[in-house]
Amino acid sequence: MRVNIGVDVGGTKIAAGAVDDNGEILALVRKPTPASSSDAVADTIGECVKELAGSYDVEAIGIGAAGFVDRERTTVVFAPNLAWRNEPLAEKVSQATGHRVVVENDANAAAWGEFKYGAASEHSSAVVVTVGTGIGGGIIVDGALLRGAGGFAGEIGHIVVNPGGQRCGCGVLGCWEAQASGTALVRIARQLAADSPVYGARMLKLAGDREITGLDVTRAAQADDPAALECFAEIAEWIGIGMATLSAAIDPDVFVLAGGVSESGDLLAVPARASFEKSLTAKEFRPAPLVKIATLGNNAGIIGAADLARR
Amino acid sequence: MRVNIGVDVGGTKIAAGAVDDNGEILALVRKPTPASSSDAVADTIGECVKELAGSYDVEAIGIGAAGFVDRERTTVVFAPNLAWRNEPLAEKVSQATGHRVVVENDANAAAWGEFKYGAASEHSSAVVVTVGTGIGGGIIVDGALLRGAGGFAGEIGHIVVNPGGQRCGCGVLGCWEAQASGTALVRIARQLAADSPVYGARMLKLAGDREITGLDVTRAAQADDPAALECFAEIAEWIGIGMATLSAAIDPDVFVLAGGVSESGDLLAVPARASFEKSLTAKEFRPAPLVKIATLGNNAGIIGAADLARR
Amino acid sequence: MRVNIGVDVGGTKIAAGAVDDNGEILALVRKPTPASSSDAVADTIGECVKELAGSYDVEAIGIGAAGFVDRERTTVVFAPNLAWRNEPLAEKVSQATGHRVVVENDANAAAWGEFKYGAASEHSSAVVVTVGTGIGGGIIVDGALLRGAGGFAGEIGHIVVNPGGQRCGCGVLGCWEAQASGTALVRIARQLAADSPVYGARMLKLAGDREITGLDVTRAAQADDPAALECFAEIAEWIGIGMATLSAAIDPDVFVLAGGVSESGDLLAVPARASFEKSLTAKEFRPAPLVKIATLGNNAGIIGAADLARR
Amino acid sequence: MRVNIGVDVGGTKIAAGAVDDNGEILALVRKPTPASSSDAVADTIGECVKELAGSYDVEAIGIGAAGFVDRERTTVVFAPNLAWRNEPLAEKVSQATGHRVVVENDANAAAWGEFKYGAASEHSSAVVVTVGTGIGGGIIVDGALLRGAGGFAGEIGHIVVNPGGQRCGCGVLGCWEAQASGTALVRIARQLAADSPVYGARMLKLAGDREITGLDVTRAAQADDPAALECFAEIAEWIGIGMATLSAAIDPDVFVLAGGVSESGDLLAVPARASFEKSLTAKEFRPAPLVKIATLGNNAGIIGAADLARR
Repeated sequence: MRVNIGVDVGGTKIAAGAVDDNGEILALVRKPTPASSSDAVADTIGECVKELAGSYDVEAIGIGAAGFVDRERTTVVFAPNLAWRNEPLAEKVSQATGHRVVVENDANAAAWGEFKYGAASEHSSAVVVTVGTGIGGGIIVDGALLRGAGGFAGEIGHIVVNPGGQRCGCGVLGCWEAQASGTALVRIARQLAADSPVYGARMLKLAGDREITGLDVTRAAQADDPAALECFAEIAEWIGIGMATLSAAIDPDVFVLAGGVSESGDLLAVPARASFEKSLTAKEFRPAPLVKIATLGNNAGIIGAADLARR
Repeated sequence: MRVNIGVDVGGTKIAAGAVDDNGEILALVRKPTPASSSDAVADTIGECVKELAGSYDVEAIGIGAAGFVDRERTTVVFAPNLAWRNEPLAEKVSQATGHRVVVENDANAAAWGEFKYGAASEHSSAVVVTVGTGIGGGIIVDGALLRGAGGFAGEIGHIVVNPGGQRCGCGVLGCWEAQASGTALVRIARQLAADSPVYGARMLKLAGDREITGLDVTRAAQADDPAALECFAEIAEWIGIGMATLSAAIDPDVFVLAGGVSESGDLLAVPARASFEKSLTAKEFRPAPLVKIATLGNNAGIIGAADLARR
Repeated sequence: MRVNIGVDVGGTKIAAGAVDDNGEILALVRKPTPASSSDAVADTIGECVKELAGSYDVEAIGIGAAGFVDRERTTVVFAPNLAWRNEPLAEKVSQATGHRVVVENDANAAAWGEFKYGAASEHSSAVVVTVGTGIGGGIIVDGALLRGAGGFAGEIGHIVVNPGGQRCGCGVLGCWEAQASGTALVRIARQLAADSPVYGARMLKLAGDREITGLDVTRAAQADDPAALECFAEIAEWIGIGMATLSAAIDPDVFVLAGGVSESGDLLAVPARASFEKSLTAKEFRPAPLVKIATLGNNAGIIGAADLARR
Repeated sequence: MRVNIGVDVGGTKIAAGAVDDNGEILALVRKPTPASSSDAVADTIGECVKELAGSYDVEAIGIGAAGFVDRERTTVVFAPNLAWRNEPLAEKVSQATGHRVVVENDANAAAWGEFKYGAASEHSSAVVVTVGTGIGGGIIVDGALLRGAGGFAGEIGHIVVNPGGQRCGCGVLGCWEAQASGTALVRIARQLAADSPVYGARMLKLAGDREITGLDVTRAAQADDPAALECFAEIAEWIGIGMATLSAAIDPDVFVLAGGVSESGDLLAVPARASFEKSLTAKEFRPAPLVKIATLGNNAGIIGAADLARR
């Protein structure tokens, strides 16, 4: 049976899957990301491919890597977490496996997965907003990934939604991920609980001896705790504003909320949609783009990378 | 000689030009926009074409109209200033002239002009930011206009740069054009002069008996008046922030500043570029997109519309 | 049959009613408020009483007047609209009619009406918030009107909810009535429509040739117009904050929203209650005070004044 | 000689005094508050009473406790610091001592002390504002404590003076105690000194190796240090705004500033009075309520509680 191999190279784990033409993962392996060298990463990917390839007819390999990828989709120009510079990843993996290899930014690969087989599969344009530790994403216009002049398109976590606001990990003040990521959610919740242990009591109780986590906030919010709902409301407000900005520039059919925080579902999506519609221009003259929750979970990156390698 | 006719339909004037394959305007006519009916507009366009067509071999007609245009580029779905709804403009003008007609949003047409023959002609992707009464624009990605699911892409005047800030004409608080258009420049200057007639003395003197205009602010700024420079600095700050946001999403090669306010040149471009680079993410890892001033002036719309009609 | 006469002395009209022990108005008369002199006002009240007294056994007369009333409830110390200073109103009306007379501030009288026979009749403490042109009100604690050391208690329109905010008619910045009255609602709506005629189109259409009124905002909001709902949301936000402040100081059983703006019912009450609960302290440890809509309408002042005259 | 015993139950100490009919404390004892159980607290109060009762004829015992007290003044419904819920404190202490017992909120008891024997003893209505770690207080209207429908009246530390401002310990943003307590004073001073060590040099020098305390700010302000005076000015601004709000609602004869921060006297009272008069409505038509500094110091609670137990 013919498959493409999709590989998701993260800072701590490499996950690879054999994916059929319907976007189904037929087999999956995970290995720790070797810290030693970039060659070791290519070797590990090679091992994953060998384990998976056994009983399948492999067409090609798609790799999603956390970094900026060149226009030829062969080289990782820069990867902050892996300390790579101009890494010819496609060539190395191709030599190690004998297969054709396509490299893509990991968030783009995951967005592509949702676009082809997930929440946006019925649409021709989409913005996938992955709300996790940071905010990543991918933009699909008229059926094609928007990659940008330097491979920096879709870095939507760094649209500036709150100039002069929260300092972002990238140094700029008020980036979307500084205001609305899971990290922001936890920061807001901890600050609230530090300022008002009484108001934050439910989250503090769930946290016990350790610090409040995103899961604590989600659980408290699911139990209608007003303080936790206020934390979600704050990031949702920013999520909506960012989507309104992206709509004005790109006008997609649909926004797909993905990533860990989006797993809270309506806790995030309902107030985000309200904020979105409040800040959306020309709303009197058109239906607002849809806002959906992602459906592929952690596997979106593997499925998307595999598909991107398809001819 | 073969030409395409480009038409720019504004709220008060219709301008049409015969444009050759090098983007040169060989002949140009202007007529008032008839307020009576949409048929009258089509008729007037027809008259312009007849006047221009005389000695040329007309391939096709391109029309840039201030409104939202359908995906087939034949119908103006909605035009706020012209009070049109679902106006079959291409069909009407085609019947009146016997030529093939393509309709496009006017800001998109002007952006396309700058992309093909103006400041961005050496690039494959560009964002044109037209700073006039409002802020309009157009986005070109990989050589193609970004039109959006509902024709609303490139409405960059309505990215939200200052949530909760100045009320925009569209109703939303803090849109780019509410913060950084020529109208904003004048609002800022008048407020400054009202608050401090001493500080705003130069602009007030230029204005004399009437209220301060954008031209007064520009002239005062050109003479190094600190108050007027401060007004430019404020809108430039917002211009830069908006460009940083668009870079994170779209990553173009170049931003082209067009429109009346951009004619002030470095008064706007220098502080806008500084603000842009301050808010641009990942600036350590890549060259910032270029920021250029438009070169085609008011003719960009005619030139762009003509080219869009070309096969 | 025994009645008390309740009189509501406004800037333009004097309304008087014969009220039975159940708070029912058995007969009612209205006359223009004479502008000539304070004696003329007393005379007009006397005429009203005579017209009403005919077939009833009058116990006493209660007068609600828009001004500050002394502790003996006989003299209007100061009435901004009537230009009275130390007016011995009780004595004059008593001489003119031969009945015992009690004078009270008009907002207090109306609040007392709602407390005894209206929305708060089942409670022992209440704050009545009358949202009309301004914000007035009355506070009832343990069954008694809170009158204050100088008769200034219950001037709740002038609690400062937004320091440095909107200038109030009284000169202070950020008073409750400057932020949340019907006048504020109209100011917000007109500003919104001036800034964005597109967004405010529905209210502008209802207004036609004249300026937007409170009724226009209410009608548009009832038809789910987002701009009108945003106007209500803004004053409701402030209404809720003010109620939270009054709860912290006074802790009533119930807030009664009265006055013209409150006639919009849930348009005001629902977002006001949400804002109230967000700003209410110790909400984890107690039920929030109730928020109800007044039930007596314009007659609350007559009914309350009549009852206050009862022994 | 006949006395009443007043007891002030704090989080760390229990103070009890034998108080005569003139509000004089004839004898006083202090013991640590037992953390073990609520029974232990009742026992300790019993021991205090026994030590004091020796040579006096005890009429009754009044207890001021930091918590919400029921309307019968026998049970502490909730005490945040003592972790009590529905504690029948009056019954327990009565059984332990054989005396009649009245329980009151501690801030109310202290306010009552100032009202009967302290700074407000010549007035019939007063608001006592206790500015310490937080802001507490008590409201006396027409000679009676305002207790509220649920015992929450007089929680004036939680009137909202700055909506959206500093998060309060209760969870709400912008409560009076979040903006104007001793804790706020210290927060403001530390922030100022961190932002500008040069400007904050005097306070930093007084603090030496440790963090700036309220005493450092007071000492520096007493020596005319402009930075420390600015810190006092900021909380005084909020104090004044809060008093203006309470005046509009309650209209007392006098405000009494009590608590640790008020011991700085004119440092707080002078700018607070200025801010108060700026935000007070109708100031043209009446004398502003007085603003006085408390005179009973830490003993106000004991004296007030003792008096509240008097028939």
